[in-house]
Amino acid sequence: MRTPEEFKKTGVDVKIKTSVEAINPDQGSVHLSDGSVLPYDILVMATGADAIRLDIPGADIEGVFVLRDLTQALRLKSYVIEKSCRKAVIVGAGYIGLEMCEAFRNLGIETQVLDILPRPALRWDPEFAKLMVEELERNQVAFLPSTKPLAIEKGKDFALKLITDKGDLDADIILMGLGTKRNTKLAESIGVQMGESGAIKVDFFQRTSRDEVYAVGDCCEVFHRVIGKWVYYPLGDIANKQGRTAGQNIGGAVAKFAGIVGAQSFKLFNLEVAATGLTEEEAEKYGFQPVSAILWGLPVGRPMSRGEKLGLKLVADKPTGRLLGAQAVGEMGAVSRINSLSIALWSGLTLEEIGYLDLAYAPVFGGAWDAIHIAAQGLMRKLT
Amino acid sequence: MRTPEEFKKTGVDVKIKTSVEAINPDQGSVHLSDGSVLPYDILVMATGADAIRLDIPGADIEGVFVLRDLTQALRLKSYVIEKSCRKAVIVGAGYIGLEMCEAFRNLGIETQVLDILPRPALRWDPEFAKLMVEELERNQVAFLPSTKPLAIEKGKDFALKLITDKGDLDADIILMGLGTKRNTKLAESIGVQMGESGAIKVDFFQRTSRDEVYAVGDCCEVFHRVIGKWVYYPLGDIANKQGRTAGQNIGGAVAKFAGIVGAQSFKLFNLEVAATGLTEEEAEKYGFQPVSAILWGLPVGRPMSRGEKLGLKLVADKPTGRLLGAQAVGEMGAVSRINSLSIALWSGLTLEEIGYLDLAYAPVFGGAWDAIHIAAQGLMRKLT
Repeated sequence: MRTPEEFKKTGVDVKIKTSVEAINPDQGSVHLSDGSVLPYDILVMATGADAIRLDIPGADIEGVFVLRDLTQALRLKSYVIEKSCRKAVIVGAGYIGLEMCEAFRNLGIETQVLDILPRPALRWDPEFAKLMVEELERNQVAFLPSTKPLAIEKGKDFALKLITDKGDLDADIILMGLGTKRNTKLAESIGVQMGESGAIKVDFFQRTSRDEVYAVGDCCEVFHRVIGKWVYYPLGDIANKQGRTAGQNIGGAVAKFAGIVGAQSFKLFNLEVAATGLTEEEAEKYGFQPVSAILWGLPVGRPMSRGEKLGLKLVADKPTGRLLGAQAVGEMGAVSRINSLSIALWSGLTLEEIGYLDLAYAPVFGGAWDAIHIAAQGLMRKLT
Repeated sequence: MRTPEEFKKTGVDVKIKTSVEAINPDQGSVHLSDGSVLPYDILVMATGADAIRLDIPGADIEGVFVLRDLTQALRLKSYVIEKSCRKAVIVGAGYIGLEMCEAFRNLGIETQVLDILPRPALRWDPEFAKLMVEELERNQVAFLPSTKPLAIEKGKDFALKLITDKGDLDADIILMGLGTKRNTKLAESIGVQMGESGAIKVDFFQRTSRDEVYAVGDCCEVFHRVIGKWVYYPLGDIANKQGRTAGQNIGGAVAKFAGIVGAQSFKLFNLEVAATGLTEEEAEKYGFQPVSAILWGLPVGRPMSRGEKLGLKLVADKPTGRLLGAQAVGEMGAVSRINSLSIALWSGLTLEEIGYLDLAYAPVFGGAWDAIHIAAQGLMRKLT
């Protein structure tokens, strides 16, 4: 990362540790916490989102963390080392919670992760969630399903105690991985319009409802190509694309960001976990008639297989045969299949096309009929 | 593989070690080498292709092999063991030749590979071929460029001697990996039409010019979606797709095989090598105006990188910006990028779209801007 001094050399004045107190859109000026006033012709809203902190007693005592930005990460890391943490409890089994299991285990910390829901990583099929729980257990992480945190107290043998409806849990550190809430207050304060999702409404050029205001990243919406609607999808790669799009348009070029299909992935110890497009629930919500099937296949050709499994679930629209979404889990090859299927989604391909896609076959990298082909051909049988 | 007896139980009569002597298309009968005559309503030509054996003196003496089918592979394997081969020379640095380097080295056999051309794997850019030569050398395989085999003789210290225009090479075994020649004689004998490539002409349903004759696999052509023409592309996964397509149509369903984009891959020791679509030379030949660029990027996100390199070359059409082809080489991530780009080719995507494709981002699997994005955005600058 460049320092403010390095930015200054390129003609960009970066103010850190400074917040915006108010915006005066009629004057075109931003009023900062250091008392200064910055005039603007163009304003970019990149206010992001904050990590959600559970609203229970004791949620703000020392040793309770959220994890959203680098500062928070560094603070957490220092705390773990300074306090010689032996036990961690993670509240919320989404991306952040699950990824942090590995980080804690690598430091030798006894780790438990709980969720109010009966399974981790809700976007994935229960069959795949089962694999994730097994992977957690294989790495000595206990998953506590359907567990509701009620309060956090100071502990005796350990620094903290998390009170839940299923009993008390000791911990030296508690991490809340409960998703994000968008920061839209500043935008709202100058009358920028919000979308249906509650995040800032933008167009394909990242312009908001105010001509002179752009928005990018986790504070604004993005166009979802599979459903043809604007949604809230706070992911880092999307924010990058929005930032570049806004920058090009502000700089005088014409750049259109054509949207997303919902591709995402994370690593859980030795498991690749990836998904794209819609789940069945989402598909129904948006008026499709989803059919789905899970294939348990191989990530490589049969002669090269050392027993690695690849679970691939496809969701398609029954009347049209169009792919709507995919999920994959496995020690290898899950992300690469989801990337391929993301491009199929981008292009609106049908199961019939996907069943015969031309992929770079060699037994060491996949079968002559890849898991993608077999899954698509299998699901086609449910279309009729 | 099932035995003829097992096939018989399913109602299929498989005759092995039996060749077709003649076909009588008027009677609808096939005359076999065992003297029997088989009547037919539908005839499927799956005559494949043979490995090319160099036409030089001594090309057929013991210890000189080609490698096309399982029988040949088993024969080669027995020979290597029985004769305790110490030295191998491979003639031809294409797929088969390069893949066999690894097989020979794994058996501790000193291996040299030569080609009449100045570099191996001609489909790939010279920069990538250089990486392949380095990978060969790292594994104690010598590559001899621009070397013309002239004759094979019996040797003294070793079983064989290959005479070339650059000197003599000792060997216990010589393998010729020089590509294939299609077996179309039978089809020609009954007046089935050949395509421009010289292989059997088929349509999207695998029908030949004769109503009752289908053709599949390495004896027939396939539709190339990028150029919109029928070409000869003898690869195993394509043969599988053609076989299934023909089978479905013969069985009464309607199945159309929409064609290929030229996806292919092989592994060279620790290097993934993959390509799809057209090379610049092919693009020019088919009337495009190719521009291309090589990106040296990372297969994973920067914070996760352990120094693995990924070379990605894109070829696009200057006036339209459409992707025409891609090549990739690297210790990891090359095949997955080529698979993604194969689907982009399938769908006719432009560089502008590819530069912003939605891929399943996590630092452990790639950057927020993946090598695919960076390569596409880089090449876009050559369009104007």
